[in-house]
Amino acid sequence: MSSIPNSLQILIEQLSRFPGVGKKSARRLAFFILKNSREDAVTLAKAVIDVKDRITECSQCHNITENDPCDICSDLKRDHKMICIVQEPMDVLAIEKTGRYRGLYHVLGGVLSPLNGIGPNDLNIDDLMPRLEGIREVILAINPTRDGETTSLYLSKLIKVKDVNVTRIAQGLPMGIDLEFADELTLTRAIEGRTQLR
Amino acid sequence: MSSIPNSLQILIEQLSRFPGVGKKSARRLAFFILKNSREDAVTLAKAVIDVKDRITECSQCHNITENDPCDICSDLKRDHKMICIVQEPMDVLAIEKTGRYRGLYHVLGGVLSPLNGIGPNDLNIDDLMPRLEGIREVILAINPTRDGETTSLYLSKLIKVKDVNVTRIAQGLPMGIDLEFADELTLTRAIEGRTQLR
Repeated sequence: MSSIPNSLQILIEQLSRFPGVGKKSARRLAFFILKNSREDAVTLAKAVIDVKDRITECSQCHNITENDPCDICSDLKRDHKMICIVQEPMDVLAIEKTGRYRGLYHVLGGVLSPLNGIGPNDLNIDDLMPRLEGIREVILAINPTRDGETTSLYLSKLIKVKDVNVTRIAQGLPMGIDLEFADELTLTRAIEGRTQLR
Repeated sequence: MSSIPNSLQILIEQLSRFPGVGKKSARRLAFFILKNSREDAVTLAKAVIDVKDRITECSQCHNITENDPCDICSDLKRDHKMICIVQEPMDVLAIEKTGRYRGLYHVLGGVLSPLNGIGPNDLNIDDLMPRLEGIREVILAINPTRDGETTSLYLSKLIKVKDVNVTRIAQGLPMGIDLEFADELTLTRAIEGRTQLR
């Protein structure tokens, strides 16, 4: 369309590459940037570059961080005898938000997926093994998808050899759901994993 | 949260300022930027700055443009005896997409809104008047909101003095809607504005 200035068209295209942002939303976002001050645009642009320049991966747990080792790995107040294994850095954030876990993490960077050609060597599994020395408990907090389940099973076998206690976060009904709307597998897991009321 | 690197936190805050983007979406967008290459980040950042640096307002119609006068105003193939008055530059895009209008535009930059203290002097009305010389028809394509209707009425009175034919884009049922779900005002307008079938 000749009526969209070229630079605006480019910005719209860039924004529509975001997950969950369609052409219309991208246009709305672009007009928002255009309406705001140049200073706002500079701040946003700088923030975009900064995350790429400042954030690296922790060499111990593979979580994202500006310092290596990351704040969690280098926090002596945390329980260094517990490791929680997750798929992605976002999962660390999610668990940290609960405030109920005070151990360390290990970010796999994905899950085993034979169909997509992702094997153990594509994940951060190799350097998980040396970290298990002296560990009391490993918690598997991998998404309960088919590939996630496969990965959990694979890891639990691998870790048990090291004589470390392996647990998995509970599967069951999410809070606030109506039982009748829960899918069968969730309900099955909820029944299997029922706990004693005290 | 100590577990979110500072630069990522800043980016999330910047992104959550976008209209319709909440904290969770902002986080997803930020992680998307983080996962992509540095080159992608630079391209996006550049696009954000470029729209602010390159885009100005057309001195004739007040549409956004990289050249002044804009491509529409300087297109000799268009009908320079018709002006379509719209609220915002996005409205020009919307009408251009239909491909059914070949005249010029005039972007008001808003609507009259006594409650928000927006009067005629806050809109691009002053320099609309000189543009009306020799014009055959002015089409009012202002949003059918309360303030929009007020603005249409105000403008039509102003323009009629200049002996120019003033029309308004039709109001009625949108395509694909069930009549029973249309609101009363829309249905009233649809009945009032009924057209002869040929």
